Amino acid sequence: MELADRLARWSESPEGLTCTYLSPAHRTVAAEIRDLMHQAGLVTEVDAVANVIGRYPAREESARTLIVASHYDTVRNAGKYDGRLGILIALVLAEHLKRLNRKLPFHLDVIAFSEEEGVRFSSSFIGSRAVAGRFDARLLECRDAEGVSLAAAMAEAGLDPAKIPALARRREDLLGYLEVHIEQGPVLLEAGLPVGIVSAIAGSVRSMITITGTAGHAGTVPMARRHDAAAAAAELVLYVEKRCAQAPTLVGTVGQLAIPDGAINIIPGRCVLSVDVRAGDDVTRDAAISDINAEMARIAARRGVKIESREVQRTATVPCSPRLQSLLSDAVTRAGLSPREFPSGAGHDAMMFDALTDIAMLFVRCGNGGVSHSPREIITAEDADIAARVMLDTVLRLAETS
Amino acid sequence: MELADRLARWSESPEGLTCTYLSPAHRTVAAEIRDLMHQAGLVTEVDAVANVIGRYPAREESARTLIVASHYDTVRNAGKYDGRLGILIALVLAEHLKRLNRKLPFHLDVIAFSEEEGVRFSSSFIGSRAVAGRFDARLLECRDAEGVSLAAAMAEAGLDPAKIPALARRREDLLGYLEVHIEQGPVLLEAGLPVGIVSAIAGSVRSMITITGTAGHAGTVPMARRHDAAAAAAELVLYVEKRCAQAPTLVGTVGQLAIPDGAINIIPGRCVLSVDVRAGDDVTRDAAISDINAEMARIAARRGVKIESREVQRTATVPCSPRLQSLLSDAVTRAGLSPREFPSGAGHDAMMFDALTDIAMLFVRCGNGGVSHSPREIITAEDADIAARVMLDTVLRLAETS
Repeated sequence: MELADRLARWSESPEGLTCTYLSPAHRTVAAEIRDLMHQAGLVTEVDAVANVIGRYPAREESARTLIVASHYDTVRNAGKYDGRLGILIALVLAEHLKRLNRKLPFHLDVIAFSEEEGVRFSSSFIGSRAVAGRFDARLLECRDAEGVSLAAAMAEAGLDPAKIPALARRREDLLGYLEVHIEQGPVLLEAGLPVGIVSAIAGSVRSMITITGTAGHAGTVPMARRHDAAAAAAELVLYVEKRCAQAPTLVGTVGQLAIPDGAINIIPGRCVLSVDVRAGDDVTRDAAISDINAEMARIAARRGVKIESREVQRTATVPCSPRLQSLLSDAVTRAGLSPREFPSGAGHDAMMFDALTDIAMLFVRCGNGGVSHSPREIITAEDADIAARVMLDTVLRLAETS
Repeated sequence: MELADRLARWSESPEGLTCTYLSPAHRTVAAEIRDLMHQAGLVTEVDAVANVIGRYPAREESARTLIVASHYDTVRNAGKYDGRLGILIALVLAEHLKRLNRKLPFHLDVIAFSEEEGVRFSSSFIGSRAVAGRFDARLLECRDAEGVSLAAAMAEAGLDPAKIPALARRREDLLGYLEVHIEQGPVLLEAGLPVGIVSAIAGSVRSMITITGTAGHAGTVPMARRHDAAAAAAELVLYVEKRCAQAPTLVGTVGQLAIPDGAINIIPGRCVLSVDVRAGDDVTRDAAISDINAEMARIAARRGVKIESREVQRTATVPCSPRLQSLLSDAVTRAGLSPREFPSGAGHDAMMFDALTDIAMLFVRCGNGGVSHSPREIITAEDADIAARVMLDTVLRLAETS
């Protein structure tokens, strides 16, 4: 908790915590994490995308590697634990093993990924993409709000993009990937559980929808003669809400909704909105999307409006490794707690390692109703301690069984 | 029709017709209207707010005055007939009487009001307010998008705001106020009628509504735990639509709707929207508003959100004079047409003369589904001709009965 407070002192904004990729605050935090890793006795390195890596080496140089990681960048006006809790728990875990001089049959790489939130360059997972071998060189052309390219920002920070391809880990070198993260939701809080095991990371399907009706004078067109784009949008919003309440892990959100050039006395001729649908499995999700599309067609026909939907993102749901899940589950049980498994609705760095190595995640309960991406994000020291003990137990069991 | 085309050549935008208060195009149109009035043999004047007045004088200097008027300013990207048709019909009416040397027992003042749409200074009816004695000196402090005050714009155009109070007509000097205007709606088009008689000008009640829910991560908050401000707004939009379909002259519109700072992956914590409600009478309108307010309270309670409604405008419905309506109605009947009376959902200059003198309005059918405030606004020469003949007949009957 004290380390999270320390890292949160560095912000690029005078008020609140904001730490986006390669800002001065971001570079200071990277240096501080490297110092902490060094003090913990780890072999440290800052790589070509500014990931900070601390290795607790295996007895054998040729051993495989277990990655325990999360990210140190933040959203704007962020909380102190999103991403960073996972790094700090991995750090204390490695420090504990080093202090005990407990050697492992695998290298333990604590990685603080430099970028996950996608704030500065509207491209997320820069750090984990590089390590997972998924960094596309075209990303270097992304520009921030000031027009600075990712390549230029890296050069200015003394990073060499030419070295990025070499950061990719090889499948045969990896034992697995573990990540601790705050839940960023209310499930554990309401269940009265300090930690939970992630069963899968929900992939989202995102669409931008444009509804075209007929604009008109708010005073002169009788209700029965209207083709109101906003009223059609309202029906769709309520359908998304109703349909996505029909399966336990399914969620659907209209996060953007606008009447372009709308005026108080004009019947909306156009309305644009976004729809984001996620679920614990892709079958559940895609069934909902199919129903939403069918409803759009019905609304369009009934109201005499045109509804165009453009899918802007489709990410497959990433299942967690049953073996690693059951190790986490056993460790939670040994800690005297009930092991609750549920999908993560949010994306995480772990997703990047899908199909490269086994992945698993441990969630930590959030307070304040589960709020995250906000200064109101909180956790308790007791829950962080339980998460660290569960991770230690899991890593030791993995050492026994590997 | 030809005169409307001529006036439409002057625009402040390279594409389409835009003619806002005291723009160069607006001043040119004023000069052209004055020329037309002069050629028609009227006694012309441009007053202190740039209204263009053409008087066809009565036999007796001490006679009362019948005003026949509408406005020559336009919205942005306007049609050619909104406002101007009424001026041009009044002009040809006076020209016809002058040519016949048919003297009237009242002065006939053709007035081209300089401002009705409220585009440049977000304050409408500048022209008719002045003549009706409703011009509040505080209006002079209104500023346009460039920060120019109304007072400064007037001074730059050679107008003297100190002379505005003297423009107010006295009740005892007025016989009545007549206005021809395009309907700006589909009622006459669908009824197959070239003209219609306005029974009342609907006053609108306008409110700005702010809904405050709880923002959250689109992936991590189960549907049952949400307090989505946009979903609450959607319910309200559909209720306004349903409730306002329950009475013939009632209309309700949500013309503005937005999720401030909305993001595709964030549950809306706030949503703002506008509601505009109008009806042929205030009792029908206010009953609807009362039901809408009650529904807001129900939605807020059911969804655990806060809904705040702020009334930003309330205009009383202005009834038209039964005597003038019946003169118009008789003239329509003599023209071999069925006299259809219905309320105007849009505001008009005529409203400003309420309680000062008797008012009445004649609507002319719009084509293209009734569209207005658009380059697609059209009327036919035949309908304009019928409107002019009905007005001539009405003015002559008024001369006989005054």
